[in-house]
Amino acid sequence: MGGDHAPDEIVAGAALAATDGSHVLLVGPRDRLEKSLADAGAQGNPDMEIVEASDVIAMDDHDPARSVRSRKDASISVAARLVKDGRADGFFSAGSTGAALAAGVLHTGRIRGVARPAIAIVLPFAPSPTVLLDAGANADVRPEHLQNFAVLGSVFARVRLGIENARVGLLSIGEEPGKGSELVKLAFPLLEGAGVNFIGNVEGRDIPTDGVDVVVTDGFTGNVALKLLEGFAKYLMGELLQIFSASEEAKAAAKVVMPGLMELSTTLSPDTHGGAHLLGTKGVCIIGHGSSNAQAVRSALTIAAETVRAGLVAEIAKALGAAEAATEVAGGN
Amino acid sequence: MGGDHAPDEIVAGAALAATDGSHVLLVGPRDRLEKSLADAGAQGNPDMEIVEASDVIAMDDHDPARSVRSRKDASISVAARLVKDGRADGFFSAGSTGAALAAGVLHTGRIRGVARPAIAIVLPFAPSPTVLLDAGANADVRPEHLQNFAVLGSVFARVRLGIENARVGLLSIGEEPGKGSELVKLAFPLLEGAGVNFIGNVEGRDIPTDGVDVVVTDGFTGNVALKLLEGFAKYLMGELLQIFSASEEAKAAAKVVMPGLMELSTTLSPDTHGGAHLLGTKGVCIIGHGSSNAQAVRSALTIAAETVRAGLVAEIAKALGAAEAATEVAGGN
Repeated sequence: MGGDHAPDEIVAGAALAATDGSHVLLVGPRDRLEKSLADAGAQGNPDMEIVEASDVIAMDDHDPARSVRSRKDASISVAARLVKDGRADGFFSAGSTGAALAAGVLHTGRIRGVARPAIAIVLPFAPSPTVLLDAGANADVRPEHLQNFAVLGSVFARVRLGIENARVGLLSIGEEPGKGSELVKLAFPLLEGAGVNFIGNVEGRDIPTDGVDVVVTDGFTGNVALKLLEGFAKYLMGELLQIFSASEEAKAAAKVVMPGLMELSTTLSPDTHGGAHLLGTKGVCIIGHGSSNAQAVRSALTIAAETVRAGLVAEIAKALGAAEAATEVAGGN
Repeated sequence: MGGDHAPDEIVAGAALAATDGSHVLLVGPRDRLEKSLADAGAQGNPDMEIVEASDVIAMDDHDPARSVRSRKDASISVAARLVKDGRADGFFSAGSTGAALAAGVLHTGRIRGVARPAIAIVLPFAPSPTVLLDAGANADVRPEHLQNFAVLGSVFARVRLGIENARVGLLSIGEEPGKGSELVKLAFPLLEGAGVNFIGNVEGRDIPTDGVDVVVTDGFTGNVALKLLEGFAKYLMGELLQIFSASEEAKAAAKVVMPGLMELSTTLSPDTHGGAHLLGTKGVCIIGHGSSNAQAVRSALTIAAETVRAGLVAEIAKALGAAEAATEVAGGN
């Protein structure tokens, strides 16, 4: 029920995903969803099922965490509990990020050893993408949370993107171990002991390069960085458009390179990031852009299904157990 | 003596600036500087003067603040003291940012009411630039420091860029007052009382837009944002180059739009930012890119001279006095 075009586009996207081999539970008011199903021509599809939820948390809810806690019948709360109860392997929402986050943490529940679930974003840089986390779940964190994020991000890069032994960098403002905020200085030795391929501090300019696979930071800095990338990409595309419409010659030139430019623009648009992954809960959770259309929903659900099949939750639990054991051994010496 | 091409390019740039109406003091080992002056054909110019400094703090000094404190004869320390002693109105360095920062704070000294000087960067977005501060001087700050930065940034935007009543935004991860980190939540009411045109929280995506003139943040987030912009601009220019070299047709198209693209690229390059301005000390202080060539040095020195003539230090002192008086009156009610 969440998103600018909900529920019609969400249901239409789900219908497409159901043809890809997933079984989809649609959560919301039954009557409304049946109408969307009919509009999508997907009535009677045995791989689509409606789960009643009478309440909806609005996109602009001012305290989504509180709403999720108190409104048990909200669609996002019901969806998150389906995962907790084992009726679903994951959930997707194009609604309020805060509500989806709270529902994942409160209703689905955390994997043992995860103090704070984090939002991971796949930044689609060529030749290889970069995972950024936390992209906004936790505005204030402690050093041990950053250690947690390093493990979550490393497993996610392997399971979702096939990057073995992902190079994990700690976002800072100087490359040497002693550089950065107090938080980063305290986190540095913890990441060294996290059982990941920790390559040390990385700077803002390293994020788009091929030198790092997973960038670990607090949710404040990560969210600022993510939105700055979005805003700057939009700004540059606007500037390019001006350059390419400055004269008839420029317009003709534009036509030649337009396919390439469109591809670049698409790669950098938030809709093609594949959504935000909430990592650390006992299920797969993808939060889509509010503007998600049917194709974006299909893509997110397909990614969710792939991530479930790749065993994300079990792999995270295993890695955290190993990291914990390593810490205990180190502590016993 | 600081920078990749020091001292020859620095002296050559200074010689150009001296023809623009500035009187330039060159600080460093006299013999070495005389050689650079001769190479630049600027011997005997009455507007260029050498001030002896026998020591130099290296670009890669691991603890520049400590070096600046203990090495009184380092060129950057001597330069900063020239300002304190009234022999110069400001200083420029293309050397270690940390050293220039420490020299400004320790040797030039702070304006009354400034707890923490901050680094301001002019981001050259069209149609109007955006001032970002703190871009890296203070990795950890308290809410009252952000209030200080708001005043520094607002005065700087007026004096340096001619923006009257600059719109000041607090960088956060949500637009409403209650959104963000604990730091930002505590700073919000302080910025409301800072005597500036505070427009509330802004997000990363707002930085490149025309909606805000001065973006206030801590030095950690600001430095990450600045370097991310640099890295992303470089990345995109690389991608564009690929698109424009993909075929003979694309190469021909590239020629048509190349002047516009080069202009965009130049606008976004760190060399044309005009340097980093250290705000809040009793003088003008500009820190140039390490790769500064003679033209970049000339440009920075000209900006420094203009900023001195516009009365930056006095204007900051006045604004802080007014803000303080306003707080006292409010406190007395």
